[in-house]
Formats: sequence, structure tokens, C-alpha cells
Amino acid sequence: MDKILLGHGSGGKLMHALINEHFSPAFGNTGSGDSAVITVPSKRLAYTTDSYVVSPLFFPGGNIGDLAVCGTVNDLAVAGAEPLYLTAGFIIEEGFPLSELQRIVRSMAESAAAAGVRIVAGDTKVVNRGKADGLFINTSGIGVLREGVDITPMNIRPGDAVIISGEIGNHGVAVLAERNSLTFDPPVLSDTRPLNGLVREMFEVTEHIGFMRDPTRGGLATTLKEAALESGLCIRIRESAIPVPPPVKGACGLLGLDPLYVANEGILIAVAAADAGERLVNAMRKHPHGRQAALIGTVATSPAGAVLLETEIGGSRIIDMLQGEQLPRIC
Amino acid sequence: MDKILLGHGSGGKLMHALINEHFSPAFGNTGSGDSAVITVPSKRLAYTTDSYVVSPLFFPGGNIGDLAVCGTVNDLAVAGAEPLYLTAGFIIEEGFPLSELQRIVRSMAESAAAAGVRIVAGDTKVVNRGKADGLFINTSGIGVLREGVDITPMNIRPGDAVIISGEIGNHGVAVLAERNSLTFDPPVLSDTRPLNGLVREMFEVTEHIGFMRDPTRGGLATTLKEAALESGLCIRIRESAIPVPPPVKGACGLLGLDPLYVANEGILIAVAAADAGERLVNAMRKHPHGRQAALIGTVATSPAGAVLLETEIGGSRIIDMLQGEQLPRIC
Repeated sequence: MDKILLGHGSGGKLMHALINEHFSPAFGNTGSGDSAVITVPSKRLAYTTDSYVVSPLFFPGGNIGDLAVCGTVNDLAVAGAEPLYLTAGFIIEEGFPLSELQRIVRSMAESAAAAGVRIVAGDTKVVNRGKADGLFINTSGIGVLREGVDITPMNIRPGDAVIISGEIGNHGVAVLAERNSLTFDPPVLSDTRPLNGLVREMFEVTEHIGFMRDPTRGGLATTLKEAALESGLCIRIRESAIPVPPPVKGACGLLGLDPLYVANEGILIAVAAADAGERLVNAMRKHPHGRQAALIGTVATSPAGAVLLETEIGGSRIIDMLQGEQLPRIC
Repeated sequence: MDKILLGHGSGGKLMHALINEHFSPAFGNTGSGDSAVITVPSKRLAYTTDSYVVSPLFFPGGNIGDLAVCGTVNDLAVAGAEPLYLTAGFIIEEGFPLSELQRIVRSMAESAAAAGVRIVAGDTKVVNRGKADGLFINTSGIGVLREGVDITPMNIRPGDAVIISGEIGNHGVAVLAERNSLTFDPPVLSDTRPLNGLVREMFEVTEHIGFMRDPTRGGLATTLKEAALESGLCIRIRESAIPVPPPVKGACGLLGLDPLYVANEGILIAVAAADAGERLVNAMRKHPHGRQAALIGTVATSPAGAVLLETEIGGSRIIDMLQGEQLPRIC
């Protein structure tokens, strides 16, 4: 049997075989019953979900499996939580190659191990050929919130420093290149990776991180605009300070994309008190996932709700949210 | 705008409008950020996930929305937990009517209210036309486990009573009828409903309920066979005691289906000490979702791992798990 059949989603014998032979060994579960019993170290938790529909399923630097684990781990991490447990729901198109599912499940297990989280419950549904696009994965995640930590745009204050943890645009360009059979030299690899270790280091430096978010769909521009709108303040960033890798810059020029709106999967932005900014960046640069961390701007009071980009040629540009859809199915 | 566009899943302006105008008001969330902050009353939790791909999306007695809420609530309830929080992930096909999405979201909100749970986090992805089948929904759920309660097939003991909370076959037949434009008189309605209230009543009677499970995909037969295999014991049930509504019996005869393998969404089986069986059934019958509760069998030691059905004509039949797929996309 090398392809997924409708019966693999039936609740019967085939599904039990799929779970017992493939999912349970990879995720280390006993697989009895539908609900997992978990123990949490504190009663204040972060809880999130994301579905992943990236196309194609495999791209330079990752696949839908590690994306589904890292994406949810990162949602929890930027909420100030230490991720602990994940669930995974698979919607599979009939005829999907079992070998590809195995590769994806293996990537999920590896990413979960790298992030130190456990995938404790799962679900498999199979739909008829032509009724899905290979594979969709949903993950949900639970993390324990750090004592005294409260991450919200309402904590952003005028004068705060705006920090980015790394280079922008890699994930979106990597997926787009794969989708269109483009090759870049050097290749652009997705930045899919878990950020909870980096966030842990950041909280060693200071507990006073008011706001964090990972700029995925919609890119850095949309995330900053959300923060500006939700805080009612103005975020001013310097184009020259934003780390855009030259291959991403080149590819975006070629494809008519603005790197500020291209999706990322392994970076975060943080807003912290001005006096903590330098120290945070220095600590982040010592972490493998924060080598390119940079101070990219500051918070001002007006114009309220706006993001202003100081361009490299000395002008100023108003940054809005992504309008419509630049790159569908990027995550 | 009356149809879902790719831009509704972009992370940008359209997605924010969809969330702010439709999801947040229905679910009562503020919608800031990706992770919800939740507080749980105890550190021992049940955690589960399910994806819903039912076709068609609307069927007699329910739709994919209340199914997605009740299914996950029930997974938690039969684990012995009191469900508290849910997440909802939507994968929507481009062009899906916004009015149908609204109806579905409203059903989800109503079911969540009926079950006393909150939908605290969500996600929306849109895929190109032809790459999904209208709408898929994933829900995950967290519940708090009752003190001292441990629901597992390992608790099943020889002599225990096997209880069913209601009639079998309604959900599967309702979906199949809708799919094939069949009408029955009286109509067969899906039994989609939350069972946590019924389970609460059951624990008022006794804390000694060793095992519960909801016989969804694969039906009563598959659930009993799982319990027999996992406990290493033999489950003997009496055909005459199993409540099969006459319209379900008729429809199954017509369609060549065995009601024992047809999916349910609003019933559970429970295994409890023999002396508690009668009392449990009496209490369950007082609850609106347990009116047809019945003792359907007992647990024996051998043949180990087997389910034996004592037929109405006095014979005995070995019941196996569902093989292959009888009714694809039933939930």
C-alpha cells in the first residue's frame, strides 16, 4: 500500500494501521482514545491554532510538516509562553503518496523535538481525489505563560525600541521560487524554525518586553501596521536597518514584490523599553536564530496608528497593511 | 462582497475585516494577536483535535459548524473532562458564499453556548477554487479532568455493564440521505449535540465510570471492538437491546448498510460496574440527550479482544472493526 485511500480516514482498520505504524511511532504516543491527558505547570496558558495549506508541500528549507509545527510553536512563543503541547489534524487527498506523508510526519517529529514540544493528539481525515490539494495540516498548541509577562500592543509606549530578530522575506521567496520552478544562486531557503529558544534568551535579558509578534502572512509591513493600529501609536522604521538578504532583494525586484510584505516563518519583532533595546539585540545575536537581530525603529505618538518608513534615499513612506493577496498559500 | 476571495486568507485587510465583522462578534473574542490567554481551574487537562470534512456541509439536523463544535466537546466529555475552551481553524475554498459561512459560524456560536464552552482562538486560510470542497473546519479543545477520574479501556472489568446513551445511526443516515437527495418520512435527523451535560449527570450518579467513548466514524461496532482489543476482554451485546430507530433500520435496509457501522454524533457508550449500570441508565434517561439510554451488554473474559453480538433470532455474530470505507466524509 503506497497511497492513501478513503478508508484511511474511516475510523476503521486502515486508519488504525496508519496511526499505529506511522503517526504514533513518530510522535511517541500510545494512541488510545481521542483526547490526550496532559499536565500543565501553571493555570495561566496560551492557546492557539493554525491551518497550513502551503503549496507546494515541499520547498527549499522546509515542508508543510515543519512549518505546521514551527508556526504554532512561534505563535505561542511570541505570546510570551513556553510551548508545551501540540495537536495535529491531517486532511489528506485520496491517492496522496504514503512516502510523502512519512517524510512530512518525520519533519514534524524532528521540529517538535527541536522545539521541545510534544504532539499529543491527532486526527486524520481523507477526502476524495480532487477535493483537496494533497495535504492540509492543522496544528493547535498550548504553552505556559511566563509569570508576570503580558504581551499586548497596549503595552507599546512612545520612545520604545522596535527590534527584528532576523532577515525578512526568505520564506515567501523560497516558496514562490519552488512554485514557479525558479532557481536562485545562492538558493533562498525558507526560514522555518522554532523561535521559543530565542524568546527564552530574550526573557533572560529583561522581563519588560511589552510586545512581540511573528510577521508571517502579510509580512513585516502588515505586522507593524497591526501593532500601530492596536496601540494607537506611530511606528517609525528605517529601511536601511531592516535586514533584507541580497538574494531576496534580487528575487523581489525580479518578481515585482515588496520584501516588507513577503511572509516569514522564523523571525519575530519585539517592542521593548529604549534602554533594553541594545541589550536585547546583543543577546539575540548570540542565539543561532537571532544572528541578524537589529534595531529597526522607534515608537512615536503621531500620526496615530501609522507606520512610517524612512527610506534609504532620505524620504518617508506610509506603510499600510497588505491589500488583497500578494502570494496565496504561503503557509 | 458576497463570496470568499483568496485575499480573505492573506493576513491583510480583507482577513481583518472578515474576522472583525463575522468571527469575533459570533465568538465574543477581541481578536488581538494569534494566541488566546486562558485560565484553567486545574493542572490536569484533556486536549484533543478533530478536522471536519463532512459532505454536504448542511444536512438534516445540523451542519459542519455545530458538528465541529459538538464533536470536539464530546471527545473531551467522554474522556471524563469538562470542556472549557475551543479553537477553530477554517480552510475555505475561494468563491465560497459568505452567507453560508455566516450560517455555519452562527451554528458554531450557538453550539458553543449550549455546551458552555468558549471558542477563544481561530485561523482562516483560503485556497484556490477547486483545491478544497467548500469548507473544512478543524477544532481543538481543552477540558479540565474531574478529580480522581481516569477513563481508559484498561479500567474495563469482567462483569461490567455496557451502556449506550441513545439511538444509533441517525447522523450517518441523515448525511447520506442529503447527499443522495433521499427523503424519509419521518425524516432522519442527525443527532449532532453536545454530551457534556449528560456526562456531568452521569458523574453525579457514580464516579466509577471506567470507560466512555463516542461511537462516531466506524459506528458502535468499531468503538466496541476498539474497547475489546484495548482491554483484552470480550464485550457481549444483545441486538434486541440496541436502540435502532425504525427509519434508520429502514434506510439501512434500503441502502445495504449495517446500522452498527453507521456514524453517530450525539451518543456515547459507557462501561461501568454492574451494580451501577441500572442507576446510571435511570439517571441518563432523565436527561434530554439520554432519553433512549439502555444497557446493551456485559463484559466477559473470553474470547479475548472479541465483540459478540447475540442476534434477535438467537444466534451469535462476531463483530469486527469497519473494513475500508462504508460512508466517506461523514464527519
